[in-house]
Amino acid sequence: MKRLLVANRGEIAVRIIRAARDLGISTVAVHSTADAEALHVRLADAAVEIGPPPAGKSYLVADAILEAARSTGADAIHPGYGFLSERAGFAGAVADAGLTFVGPDAAVIEQMGDKVRARQVAAAAGVPTVPGTPGGVEDVDAAVTAAAEIGYPVMLKAAAGGGGRGIRVVEDEAGLRAAFGAASKEAANAFGDGRMYLERFVRRARHVEVQVLGDGSDAVHLFERECSLQRRRQKMVEEALAPGIDPGVREAMTAAAVRLAREVGYRSAGTAEFLVDDETHEFFFIEMNTRIQVEHPTTESITGIDLVAEQLRIAAGEPLGRAQADVTARGWAIEFRVCAEDPSRGFLPSPGRVGRVVLPAGPWVRVDTWLEPDVTVPPFYDSLLAKVVVWGEDRESAIRRSRRALAEFAVEGVPTTAGLATEILEEPWFAEGAFHTGTLEQWLSDREEELG
Amino acid sequence: MKRLLVANRGEIAVRIIRAARDLGISTVAVHSTADAEALHVRLADAAVEIGPPPAGKSYLVADAILEAARSTGADAIHPGYGFLSERAGFAGAVADAGLTFVGPDAAVIEQMGDKVRARQVAAAAGVPTVPGTPGGVEDVDAAVTAAAEIGYPVMLKAAAGGGGRGIRVVEDEAGLRAAFGAASKEAANAFGDGRMYLERFVRRARHVEVQVLGDGSDAVHLFERECSLQRRRQKMVEEALAPGIDPGVREAMTAAAVRLAREVGYRSAGTAEFLVDDETHEFFFIEMNTRIQVEHPTTESITGIDLVAEQLRIAAGEPLGRAQADVTARGWAIEFRVCAEDPSRGFLPSPGRVGRVVLPAGPWVRVDTWLEPDVTVPPFYDSLLAKVVVWGEDRESAIRRSRRALAEFAVEGVPTTAGLATEILEEPWFAEGAFHTGTLEQWLSDREEELG
Repeated sequence: MKRLLVANRGEIAVRIIRAARDLGISTVAVHSTADAEALHVRLADAAVEIGPPPAGKSYLVADAILEAARSTGADAIHPGYGFLSERAGFAGAVADAGLTFVGPDAAVIEQMGDKVRARQVAAAAGVPTVPGTPGGVEDVDAAVTAAAEIGYPVMLKAAAGGGGRGIRVVEDEAGLRAAFGAASKEAANAFGDGRMYLERFVRRARHVEVQVLGDGSDAVHLFERECSLQRRRQKMVEEALAPGIDPGVREAMTAAAVRLAREVGYRSAGTAEFLVDDETHEFFFIEMNTRIQVEHPTTESITGIDLVAEQLRIAAGEPLGRAQADVTARGWAIEFRVCAEDPSRGFLPSPGRVGRVVLPAGPWVRVDTWLEPDVTVPPFYDSLLAKVVVWGEDRESAIRRSRRALAEFAVEGVPTTAGLATEILEEPWFAEGAFHTGTLEQWLSDREEELG
Repeated sequence: MKRLLVANRGEIAVRIIRAARDLGISTVAVHSTADAEALHVRLADAAVEIGPPPAGKSYLVADAILEAARSTGADAIHPGYGFLSERAGFAGAVADAGLTFVGPDAAVIEQMGDKVRARQVAAAAGVPTVPGTPGGVEDVDAAVTAAAEIGYPVMLKAAAGGGGRGIRVVEDEAGLRAAFGAASKEAANAFGDGRMYLERFVRRARHVEVQVLGDGSDAVHLFERECSLQRRRQKMVEEALAPGIDPGVREAMTAAAVRLAREVGYRSAGTAEFLVDDETHEFFFIEMNTRIQVEHPTTESITGIDLVAEQLRIAAGEPLGRAQADVTARGWAIEFRVCAEDPSRGFLPSPGRVGRVVLPAGPWVRVDTWLEPDVTVPPFYDSLLAKVVVWGEDRESAIRRSRRALAEFAVEGVPTTAGLATEILEEPWFAEGAFHTGTLEQWLSDREEELG
């Protein structure tokens, strides 16, 4: 690998360019007309304009990106996250063009992108998924039999339905018998199909994910990340490791992720996402992300392993070169996403001209960003401005250091979520690690009520 | 400890303020009139002007600093490095004022500041010092006997002399017998005293130092740093660990440093400096620095231990709280000092107005600095602008990443040594770790000849 085209923008493009440079690989940036002045464009050794915003006319145009690679002599393409990163067709087209796609094979992306096939792979690898009926059940007795196997509480939903419509949660057999008839009738009315789908309901779930690295024949895990603090499925704060996780659960879950990676001959960095039942400590595989993730720096901070460099090395055909015993975790890392959004106006995106910028610095504070003084935040893309990643010898010291780091952060000109991150730091439930996937939204709504 | 006065300026004041903040300790900056706008002043919770430049009228005025502590209610003083940091009298005055001095006891500072007493302590702790005669020898036969014990090559100098005058290096007994008479006569003529002092001559020496932490009753080491790359005794590039050091030497040297710290009941962070003979691998204690050192971030990067926070904790009376086995080294760190000096003009200091500033960032790059856009570098103080500290999984990857980091560094308005650091990175002797205390000056002089 001599010349890498980075098919992305923003902080992840900057991140990938730095990793390539660390390995002595030259870099090509692509950019929309809106990003002509962006940091990733200036940091790269070459840059190609690939179209106007929005992304559908530039960053998502596979042909334009392949043409940019051809014209600049790039021999590899890193897709970053989002955009084309999990499109099997793009990975295939890159390979067909004789270039190296930095990520798993197209077939694996496709397999993992299909939820049904991904569940089958998980089953084959002995990785637990959320227990449920394979299809719809016809009547209440079949439902009771199924529920007994699944375990209560059980979620009852129309097999033919979509979205959250008509979902009922039942606590026991009596509840199931009481609810089934009406629910089935409602489904029949709405969808012309009264069959019901049953799935275990996880009342208080944590979103925990396991980072893996594979080279096609071997795989290792790099421990887990806790990502439960989400607003509308967007993570806001992530950590490595997961606070309060039972060591036995960690061991079983990381082993499961490695089995899954081995099952598909995974080649690159990937993430197995799990739901952990906060009450029973059971864990269930949800899906596998076949790309680098936004929150990857937390794992890098505790393991000392450069995940993007590993992606590049592996894509270039090098073997993994580390056994599981070589991967050790030291200390604790927390990442805060700072977005150009206005929390006081319902997280309204806040694009615009940035004035002065002060980024936190000093020991054990890493800021992955494309921010510079006097840049413009375009309205066309995701609102992520910066990731403030803080490491400490333990979680408590990482939290204390995070206070300092966030206090140093200053961006003039656009409202951001940095202040909100500071508020979260002060919450007892955060300090105690006592939160789940519903905590942040509940807190935000309570807070809004208080603020009036 | 509630409120810490930082009796220093520049990057180390910024560093100390951040460490204090990480521990929830509020901070007081002191500053000269020339530093009124400096970053450390703005980062601190309070600031007191203590006089005009130069340092003799402000940063070195103990009374002004004590008065600033009194007036702001500070209960502790961190001296940083340089300035008052190794003045036993100041440490004593701080204690007499009922405040906590962040550093070892005044008596230990005094003991270690006196070379003769420091050698005695080393001897008591079984730590080797450069072999030599205790005093002058009268005649050639006594010299031959002494030299046999010291080991050749031996340096012969006038016992009454100073500086480098009349120093002769002899390789063996024949050389000693041939040189002694003339040397002694010369000494008698110059100083009225023909007695000669003999000391082992270390032809190719490395400067390696061991970081220790002690709490008065226990002490641990945090491995070593390689600091041989010096110009006029000013270090330019430092690393942790020392490249190519024999593991047995490392073990013996770090153990020696711990014995030394225990011998004096050392309380704080300290550094035992050693000379390592590049040929014989013998090591000799030179001196102990009883303060935080400029190059401390390299040790922090490989151990994950915050040395300034440890100084504060220990000064506040907390026990060390770590056994030697708890201190582990991971990877490799290199620090480059970027100074406002012009290498093309004999390293002439280059104070002045700074324009645009771009600091390297991204994974595993830490920049300790007081630099900001549009600041003025005053002519009154040391020329250190920034320390670029790069970590990698091994030395080779740290070097590769250093290239990237230094390439990102940009300061407009004042010449700096950043470009020179980049040149050093490309030298084969640097890549191979094959250098000693004379290498950098030799290289600079060869380079000047080539360029000139």
